[in-house]
Amino acid sequence: MNADAFKTYPDQVKIYELGARDGLQAEKKILTVEEKVSWINGLTSCGYQAIEVGSLVNTKLIPQMVDTDKVFLSIDRKPECQYFVLVGNKKYLHTALDIGVRNISLMGSASNLFSLENTHITLSESLTKIGEMLRVCKENNIYTRVYVSCCYDCPYQGAIDNKEVIDVIDRLMQLGCDELSLADTTGKATIIQVEHLLEASMKIVPLEKLAVHFHNTYSQAMVNTLVSLQMGVNKVDSSVGELGGCPYAKNPLVSPEHQGNLGTEALLFMLHGLNINTGVSSEKVREMKQYAFNALNRTN
Amino acid sequence: MNADAFKTYPDQVKIYELGARDGLQAEKKILTVEEKVSWINGLTSCGYQAIEVGSLVNTKLIPQMVDTDKVFLSIDRKPECQYFVLVGNKKYLHTALDIGVRNISLMGSASNLFSLENTHITLSESLTKIGEMLRVCKENNIYTRVYVSCCYDCPYQGAIDNKEVIDVIDRLMQLGCDELSLADTTGKATIIQVEHLLEASMKIVPLEKLAVHFHNTYSQAMVNTLVSLQMGVNKVDSSVGELGGCPYAKNPLVSPEHQGNLGTEALLFMLHGLNINTGVSSEKVREMKQYAFNALNRTN
Repeated sequence: MNADAFKTYPDQVKIYELGARDGLQAEKKILTVEEKVSWINGLTSCGYQAIEVGSLVNTKLIPQMVDTDKVFLSIDRKPECQYFVLVGNKKYLHTALDIGVRNISLMGSASNLFSLENTHITLSESLTKIGEMLRVCKENNIYTRVYVSCCYDCPYQGAIDNKEVIDVIDRLMQLGCDELSLADTTGKATIIQVEHLLEASMKIVPLEKLAVHFHNTYSQAMVNTLVSLQMGVNKVDSSVGELGGCPYAKNPLVSPEHQGNLGTEALLFMLHGLNINTGVSSEKVREMKQYAFNALNRTN
Repeated sequence: MNADAFKTYPDQVKIYELGARDGLQAEKKILTVEEKVSWINGLTSCGYQAIEVGSLVNTKLIPQMVDTDKVFLSIDRKPECQYFVLVGNKKYLHTALDIGVRNISLMGSASNLFSLENTHITLSESLTKIGEMLRVCKENNIYTRVYVSCCYDCPYQGAIDNKEVIDVIDRLMQLGCDELSLADTTGKATIIQVEHLLEASMKIVPLEKLAVHFHNTYSQAMVNTLVSLQMGVNKVDSSVGELGGCPYAKNPLVSPEHQGNLGTEALLFMLHGLNINTGVSSEKVREMKQYAFNALNRTN
């Protein structure tokens, strides 16, 4: 048996429930405001400390995210939970501020081609725009979270070099974001890649500002999360029922076994089995999965 | 970052491909001898060192395993691969010997109720019968592998105490089996349970005689395999396309998210990403998954 066989883990992990944003945006069926509100209220009752409730973006491109403002205004918000809204640009940021959103997510990328394909601006231009939005957020005392998509691999560019990712992370930290979520958009990250990126990131990002976000396209989300925990990471993104995954990752270069995010149920089973405290009820999460699957007409 | 963040792993892992036995026995559709033979020949071409080709058991109970003798006699057998046949009792063992099987699997259990429910004999009686079969195998210079089902949890008995499992493992080693596969029949094993059982097992079982077998019922198969590797285990059971899982684990006590074995594709992605040598081609395995899914009329 190896000397270091018994690993150490964080005592506590904060789960970011992304089902209502990253999850729903990948679904064909569009839920009504009432369905979304009822579901998100159910998610709140699960005990999460962070829930992303939707995005303010171009709903011609992402029609599932219609009425995010109404949803945000209608949900019961508990003080012990952060309710994030992802905003697509400065105009939507102001909408978010107008309706009282206090936690804002922004979408960044470590891949220039991904940026060009999805937002029609270069990576460098995208960082400038993110910087402007972070400044507005700071002025308004808003907590900010930036997703760094394509941290390992890009559907358009292929493998992404660690150095490029670290440059983006470094820039985002300088721009003053409160936390980063390092995302494996295509689900192709290997354990070694995750270890190397986290090792490099931890040199420039304090642990409390670092989250991980894994897609389960090649069934690697759980093991990549596990090695992240073993390295000390204590913020993990997941989605009830594995809903979601990146729609843009459906590219001829990628031939996914599954589509989907790390599932919250599987994550909770692992974390609670490791005696890691999450504050989230597995049983209620299973009910909320069933609620969503019924509303979306999905089967197990 | 934790001091022990970078883990050590085995240089090489031997994969036991169980799709043609554990996999097919869980499927409604029964493949023809020709389909099975063609598939298993394809599996051989993937580069496995061990393939379980079927079982000789009561085919009134498990009709999918009809014609295992014909299948075994018809496949192309390469000397670098062990072709296992699971046998249900002494009568079937002699059938196996008669047709020239050189690698025999036997089904044991760490749960008395599981033994009673599935074989209508007590755990103790079952170990006596296994002992008799192991003796016959030894006399005939046959390599033997025993599955210890319900190492963590039993669909009938609930949680299984480590001590009970270790007693069974100890007895099986004394009875002279060549290797053991520690099976998580219900898929409920937690990482801590796996670490504790492996730690205890490694005190009485040499590493080269120890394999792990995880079901993905609660999406824990990959992480449990990963911690097993981190502890030095280098023999892993898996099944192309996640086919299989224990049909007897479908019990009111168990409410599975998925049914299925650890999938070979996911396992290979992880192992090769860790630079662990398997000798198995991921690309050919994907083809063989497609072959099986087509033959079984299954979709992805």
